[in-house]
Amino acid sequence: MSAPKKVVLAYSGGLDTSIILKWLQTEYGCEVVTFTADLGQGEELDPARQKAELLGIKPENIFIEDLREEFVRDFVFPMFRANAVYEGLYLLGTSIARPLISQRLIEIAEATGADAVAHGATGKGNDQVRFELSAYALNPEIKVIAPWREWDLTSRTKLLEFAEAHQIPIAKDKRGEAPFSVDANLLHTSSEGKVLEDPAVEAPEYVYQRTDHPENAPDSPEYIEIGFEKGDAVSINGEAMSPATILTQLNEYGRKHGIGRLDFVENRFVGMKSRGIYETPGGDILLEAHRGIEQITLDSGAGHLKDSIMPRYAELIYNGFWFSPEREMLQALIDKSQEHVTGTVRLKLYKGSARTVGRWSPNSLYSEAHVTFEEDAGAYDQTDAAGFIQLNALRLKLIAQRNKRVSGK
Amino acid sequence: MSAPKKVVLAYSGGLDTSIILKWLQTEYGCEVVTFTADLGQGEELDPARQKAELLGIKPENIFIEDLREEFVRDFVFPMFRANAVYEGLYLLGTSIARPLISQRLIEIAEATGADAVAHGATGKGNDQVRFELSAYALNPEIKVIAPWREWDLTSRTKLLEFAEAHQIPIAKDKRGEAPFSVDANLLHTSSEGKVLEDPAVEAPEYVYQRTDHPENAPDSPEYIEIGFEKGDAVSINGEAMSPATILTQLNEYGRKHGIGRLDFVENRFVGMKSRGIYETPGGDILLEAHRGIEQITLDSGAGHLKDSIMPRYAELIYNGFWFSPEREMLQALIDKSQEHVTGTVRLKLYKGSARTVGRWSPNSLYSEAHVTFEEDAGAYDQTDAAGFIQLNALRLKLIAQRNKRVSGK
Amino acid sequence: MSAPKKVVLAYSGGLDTSIILKWLQTEYGCEVVTFTADLGQGEELDPARQKAELLGIKPENIFIEDLREEFVRDFVFPMFRANAVYEGLYLLGTSIARPLISQRLIEIAEATGADAVAHGATGKGNDQVRFELSAYALNPEIKVIAPWREWDLTSRTKLLEFAEAHQIPIAKDKRGEAPFSVDANLLHTSSEGKVLEDPAVEAPEYVYQRTDHPENAPDSPEYIEIGFEKGDAVSINGEAMSPATILTQLNEYGRKHGIGRLDFVENRFVGMKSRGIYETPGGDILLEAHRGIEQITLDSGAGHLKDSIMPRYAELIYNGFWFSPEREMLQALIDKSQEHVTGTVRLKLYKGSARTVGRWSPNSLYSEAHVTFEEDAGAYDQTDAAGFIQLNALRLKLIAQRNKRVSGK
Amino acid sequence: MSAPKKVVLAYSGGLDTSIILKWLQTEYGCEVVTFTADLGQGEELDPARQKAELLGIKPENIFIEDLREEFVRDFVFPMFRANAVYEGLYLLGTSIARPLISQRLIEIAEATGADAVAHGATGKGNDQVRFELSAYALNPEIKVIAPWREWDLTSRTKLLEFAEAHQIPIAKDKRGEAPFSVDANLLHTSSEGKVLEDPAVEAPEYVYQRTDHPENAPDSPEYIEIGFEKGDAVSINGEAMSPATILTQLNEYGRKHGIGRLDFVENRFVGMKSRGIYETPGGDILLEAHRGIEQITLDSGAGHLKDSIMPRYAELIYNGFWFSPEREMLQALIDKSQEHVTGTVRLKLYKGSARTVGRWSPNSLYSEAHVTFEEDAGAYDQTDAAGFIQLNALRLKLIAQRNKRVSGK
Repeated sequence: MSAPKKVVLAYSGGLDTSIILKWLQTEYGCEVVTFTADLGQGEELDPARQKAELLGIKPENIFIEDLREEFVRDFVFPMFRANAVYEGLYLLGTSIARPLISQRLIEIAEATGADAVAHGATGKGNDQVRFELSAYALNPEIKVIAPWREWDLTSRTKLLEFAEAHQIPIAKDKRGEAPFSVDANLLHTSSEGKVLEDPAVEAPEYVYQRTDHPENAPDSPEYIEIGFEKGDAVSINGEAMSPATILTQLNEYGRKHGIGRLDFVENRFVGMKSRGIYETPGGDILLEAHRGIEQITLDSGAGHLKDSIMPRYAELIYNGFWFSPEREMLQALIDKSQEHVTGTVRLKLYKGSARTVGRWSPNSLYSEAHVTFEEDAGAYDQTDAAGFIQLNALRLKLIAQRNKRVSGK
Repeated sequence: MSAPKKVVLAYSGGLDTSIILKWLQTEYGCEVVTFTADLGQGEELDPARQKAELLGIKPENIFIEDLREEFVRDFVFPMFRANAVYEGLYLLGTSIARPLISQRLIEIAEATGADAVAHGATGKGNDQVRFELSAYALNPEIKVIAPWREWDLTSRTKLLEFAEAHQIPIAKDKRGEAPFSVDANLLHTSSEGKVLEDPAVEAPEYVYQRTDHPENAPDSPEYIEIGFEKGDAVSINGEAMSPATILTQLNEYGRKHGIGRLDFVENRFVGMKSRGIYETPGGDILLEAHRGIEQITLDSGAGHLKDSIMPRYAELIYNGFWFSPEREMLQALIDKSQEHVTGTVRLKLYKGSARTVGRWSPNSLYSEAHVTFEEDAGAYDQTDAAGFIQLNALRLKLIAQRNKRVSGK
Repeated sequence: MSAPKKVVLAYSGGLDTSIILKWLQTEYGCEVVTFTADLGQGEELDPARQKAELLGIKPENIFIEDLREEFVRDFVFPMFRANAVYEGLYLLGTSIARPLISQRLIEIAEATGADAVAHGATGKGNDQVRFELSAYALNPEIKVIAPWREWDLTSRTKLLEFAEAHQIPIAKDKRGEAPFSVDANLLHTSSEGKVLEDPAVEAPEYVYQRTDHPENAPDSPEYIEIGFEKGDAVSINGEAMSPATILTQLNEYGRKHGIGRLDFVENRFVGMKSRGIYETPGGDILLEAHRGIEQITLDSGAGHLKDSIMPRYAELIYNGFWFSPEREMLQALIDKSQEHVTGTVRLKLYKGSARTVGRWSPNSLYSEAHVTFEEDAGAYDQTDAAGFIQLNALRLKLIAQRNKRVSGK
Repeated sequence: MSAPKKVVLAYSGGLDTSIILKWLQTEYGCEVVTFTADLGQGEELDPARQKAELLGIKPENIFIEDLREEFVRDFVFPMFRANAVYEGLYLLGTSIARPLISQRLIEIAEATGADAVAHGATGKGNDQVRFELSAYALNPEIKVIAPWREWDLTSRTKLLEFAEAHQIPIAKDKRGEAPFSVDANLLHTSSEGKVLEDPAVEAPEYVYQRTDHPENAPDSPEYIEIGFEKGDAVSINGEAMSPATILTQLNEYGRKHGIGRLDFVENRFVGMKSRGIYETPGGDILLEAHRGIEQITLDSGAGHLKDSIMPRYAELIYNGFWFSPEREMLQALIDKSQEHVTGTVRLKLYKGSARTVGRWSPNSLYSEAHVTFEEDAGAYDQTDAAGFIQLNALRLKLIAQRNKRVSGK
């Protein structure tokens, strides 16, 4: 790879990406463009601009964008249509944000004539894979710089020395090492590393930043109603809202009731296991609600097919293949299934859990006429069941006869 | 089908199966053998014996058996090795009990020279299918009698008239109709019908019989530790127990903390949707714990394969195909995966939920040496990730180049 | 089911459906509408009109249609996009024709105000299921009459007596029983029953009606080139043609070279095994060619996903679920994959087989620059493979270390 | 990686691996152990011994083994139980040989105290991955040396210079470059590269080394009968034979009749497409025969499950994951299915194709009593089909009613 001339850096404004910024300038002598996105991580973006300027970035090279609506509408919601969970439990909160960041990095690179992008993910994790697969899928000629895999700043001390040597301001609380590492966006907050590295030991309460302790949650349940159209949430308690507003509000409900905590050991794409604490307050509620509305609007053929391909879909997103033909093919299948997933779900929120307690829809496939224990006025002929069972049993009978014949019994 | 001469009836001792007993005698003039099993449904079995005798069944034709250990060891535990859930949420508590009952019906039929078996499931539900597929798979020549599909006792009034006409005792509380229908065993209690038929309306609290209301659960959490060997639970808090004892104890923990409630609309195999309230107190805890121990003992290849076939496995059990070649093939796959699923999980029980907070195992695949944020002494070479990403990206780059070329951009 | 008033009958003009026609009139006293379609079965349609008139059908109730283009364009081609084969070998020639016939039956019923449709499939086969599932999916209120499951004309003798009693003309060669039963359309000819019922015995040569004996095929190979656009064949040897024309021509190539014969034992949806002789001359060539063009235009992610869902897709079509949400979902996935499946395949036809020997495409993903054994000018960095392998191996190493630790070796 | 001290080299005796041998000695100054296996590639092994001695390998460090029986019995046959084909067409002839070679390399390393193994696969192909994943899975501490990824002998000229400088004999026909590259074993011969690199151009006839041209094959067909037990071939024409003998004989039948040629563009695991010519004469016959015997001995539940997981199983073998938990889990599933796959298949071999024309088995599930067009003496009740269809249609009707209601039509 020839040396980059102009690099778009995914820049948070924090110490680590500021060091990267400076390192790119000094190591490659290249022009740096910063890109800072509001994905709902809950941090001010203004300081990032000031800091970038302080580090010598030209104003026209500073990109700061609020991507919350795009994030929820084009990434989170399509994923939730699939009820995607990785390894049975993880709602993919970090995974789903990476493709959008890469997409904007590439777009900004094209707009500014940059020949490279850079990110602050380490060489051990999944995020480097997600950033880079997305970048290459969108621009096969782009250079990707991953400083953590390249440089020799391999200890906290060296990083701080580099920062000091290059006049990078260091906040007081960044002098020591953080007791764990955090990633956050509108969908979730993840924490991992350091105090969390022994999976046998319960995570300390101070790790949880996004949800109140269920024990401190209100002592009485709260009910909410989420409206859906074609598989996407469109309202809360009857009030129509934008995608990001809905997720923001659900986060607030979840936070209050201690919903969405997960202590999890997962398999990284790069081959090792890691332990994380995830908080997905709004996401947990949304998943439960989406399943609730599908219960009455999807038939078994559609639902079972979705269930059977979901693990693969989730794995693709986890591994960073959002921009791949197979993810798009699966999305086509999933979206096709959601045409009638419209209606309302009533949920009960209480002490750490969100449970569906009612659901209704103009598109409902639930037929009280068929299922009733009462007289059904001919909707269903019970004698049909006899033939149904006989033909389903036929092959099993033939097997049993064969086995008897073969065993001579 | 020629008329049966001797029928083994799955007999609960309740009013409905007593009416069936009598109806079989009068309709077919056949000898009736009763089979009553303790699967942990929480009812005394002695009354069933007395009632059978009262209805004229010969003592040698009355079979009463405690199958709890067999049920958990040979059916529940193998199923939990798969983390089986139907349609994302249902733990298959009713489905998994049917094959065992059918198996014993067939064995008793063979032992007593009976040519038929009979059950009390209706023509609208899944249980008729499960009973009969299992029966035919085990004995392809057996006759199966399903009175609810045959007789004309199609209203409560007619049933009571028949009972009175045949001196069948009717408990006072059975005069009126039950507000919903219940099935129970050691794994779960399900309730459906009548007051539950509108899926938009929250189920009344009195429907829940197996779990305390989470709001009434203890205000402080309780911790327990479940030990596993080769995928099966073998101890609680360090004390070794038999399978049924473990499930019984977990049920008690679950009951106390309000764990395992589910309000669910499902797709029946016979083609309609139905709404049920399920309570699976011990099962919910066990599933969470099993996932917890798999997190550190299964690698991603094994775990993802299991996840991808699970929906099909669960569907087979739901639909009644326990005794089918494909269920046995999937079981072989699942059991193979469990050889190293040994260790201990620590769970926190609180107000309706059971969450894994720690897990450890002599067979753990979790490597702190690899995952650590600290210096890893060469366990992992971060530059490997660059090559890993490049080759994973290669096809995506080729696609992007092709698309550029084709679109002429 | 109340008695039908007006019935649309799938009418071939042959003896059996003529008897059905008369039986419907006499049994139900209902008005009969006949529908005869040209799906490429190679029979004149005019006699069907004359015979229907002879049997008293009003001219406005006689529908005769050439559906060959619709058949190939809307059913055969979409299915071939999936490379669908049932149980590894069968190209679904009969299965794929049924939904179209049902669709037209329902449309004609709606146009003529009929309340029922009728078909001539027996109660043992798959076709009854396919006809009826399609009919019910398109019109849930329609009545379906399947005379073979209802009447008592259970022997050849009774059928002939009925025909004679009702002045139905009987061709001389229909007096005796046919030595096997045949179904044909533009995609295939299937033969089964009677002389074919012992699967151990080779089918006599006279069963094959659609293909020349490979031993009689030309002694020198013939080359053809098939052009594709978005997954569908659009030309042969550079000449653009309509879908039905292409399949007709490929059939002629296949017939001449003895291509597409299959002796097969399959699992029917109704639970039994049956043995059939299938001839799919053009279909075999088309499948080979479609695979050939996909080889260079689909990447592995898309191709492997298609391969993994294909068996389910084929099973759905075989079982009669063309008009089901899950088939439509899978079709959306498949169609999405075909956007770049454009190009040309060169095939060699010889003595029973069609083999791809060359393929090229403006959309090709094949990169000689990458794969070459020669110097590749930096297209591919071989050292990337080391990192790729290391990270793919990481979990396997962790397993091996665990196993060593556990076994104490 | 520290420098290896003693290396076991997969040594063919040819020029390339002889250069590697010398390079290992000179580059690392390490002791070299050679391992040469007869996997049926059709080359003498004695010259390999002589050449190794000539290059200074100590006699106790020269391992030459006939692994043909082990290869077929423990690798080829288990794979054929799955009917494994990669990307629809490739029988995995190269892929399946690699794990066995790696296994012996590791065993010899342990027996001789070697700390490394080496292979002659390049950095662009799949074989490096297969060799190394297998090696690491069997010994996580082993070092693997892949000279083609390390050295600077990047042109034919440099290689020959190195050979001359180190007194490595060069056969006259190795002076020039081969027009394509070949790999062979008892299952297949593959050819790729150079003259085959343009996938649009038909492969020249001289590439085919293992099969006669179908046009030169006998003008009359030949019939053979293959006997199976539990899924494995055990006899030809009634004569019991060992696994390797059976495959050897089938290869001879295939060679003679021009069977098993494939011109194929595949997706390599490392991300690029490549074009190969494969000849699998015996394998093609065996696959056809195995499918034939499964047709009557596997029921649809077992068969369809096998079909649905086959692509994943084949991909695992192709990608080099033979020694992985997920391959072993799938093998457990597949082997479970084969318990009754016993019987005989009759095949017709003619001009490039092998077709099943008859099959019989003591374990057959084919029931002429059920399928017959004749009177079936009550084996099957056609009215059962009505109920079967009604309940399968129920959900489709509910969907249609919903859609009508929603669309207001």
